[in-house]
Amino acid sequence: MLQEVKSYIQMAADEANKAGSRGEVPVGAVLVDSVNDEIIAAAGNQTKEFTDPTAHAELLVIQQGGRRLENTHLTGCDLYVTLEPCPMCAQAISFARIRRLYFGAYDPKGGGVEHGARIFQQSTCHHHPEVYGGIEEKMCGALLRSFFDGKR
Amino acid sequence: MLQEVKSYIQMAADEANKAGSRGEVPVGAVLVDSVNDEIIAAAGNQTKEFTDPTAHAELLVIQQGGRRLENTHLTGCDLYVTLEPCPMCAQAISFARIRRLYFGAYDPKGGGVEHGARIFQQSTCHHHPEVYGGIEEKMCGALLRSFFDGKR
Repeated sequence: MLQEVKSYIQMAADEANKAGSRGEVPVGAVLVDSVNDEIIAAAGNQTKEFTDPTAHAELLVIQQGGRRLENTHLTGCDLYVTLEPCPMCAQAISFARIRRLYFGAYDPKGGGVEHGARIFQQSTCHHHPEVYGGIEEKMCGALLRSFFDGKR
Repeated sequence: MLQEVKSYIQMAADEANKAGSRGEVPVGAVLVDSVNDEIIAAAGNQTKEFTDPTAHAELLVIQQGGRRLENTHLTGCDLYVTLEPCPMCAQAISFARIRRLYFGAYDPKGGGVEHGARIFQQSTCHHHPEVYGGIEEKMCGALLRSFFDGKR
């Protein structure tokens, strides 16, 4: 695997850890301009902090990316996230015309890319990124497990 | 049909019209606290204004509702929207534990409730609202048609 991909997923994991320490579900995302190899936005979940059920890491970096690049289409951008995106975030990734999606752990219970709604495979989905799942899967899965184990 | 439902959908249509006059896709939404019959939030699409591909009317009222009610769960709330929600918004409606969803026009090309991903029917969807589609369908459909006709 490219060292670059690993390092961006590690950065997303750092955001996930920070989110976890704030009491959020530890999921993190990084949005990268692939043309200039520049980080556009990085975030962890903030649903509790913002009292906003939609404040998932992926949505936050897309929103920040749109404002920063002054474009609703983030066509040259790649998204790195520690967990398989849910259907809400997957559809947002489609609307934002993200080029590539790299994610860590698979999410059979809530994922919307390889599970459930399989957003990118729907005829109502008009753009889908290239998808690379299972990147540093063990590390990314452990992040979530240690959080939920701590909750018990 | 209850007069109340009609009047909230009309209010959503007013938001849609305002969005259209700002150059946005004319979709509007109203979030109502069904227990106290109180309007919590109302919005039209603002994707262009905010340069944010996720700024759909439904997401905006859910975000505002969460902040206003200081709760990510809007369990007593009903959502009125002029168009069948897309998969992103449908999943957000699920996360927010909205009680009832009333929508106007059906959206075979981009909808995620009765079409495509059919979010609420997925096993990965852990809460679904009661759904009432086709409310004032003719009026709501005409809103969109007149906007897109004007674009040609």
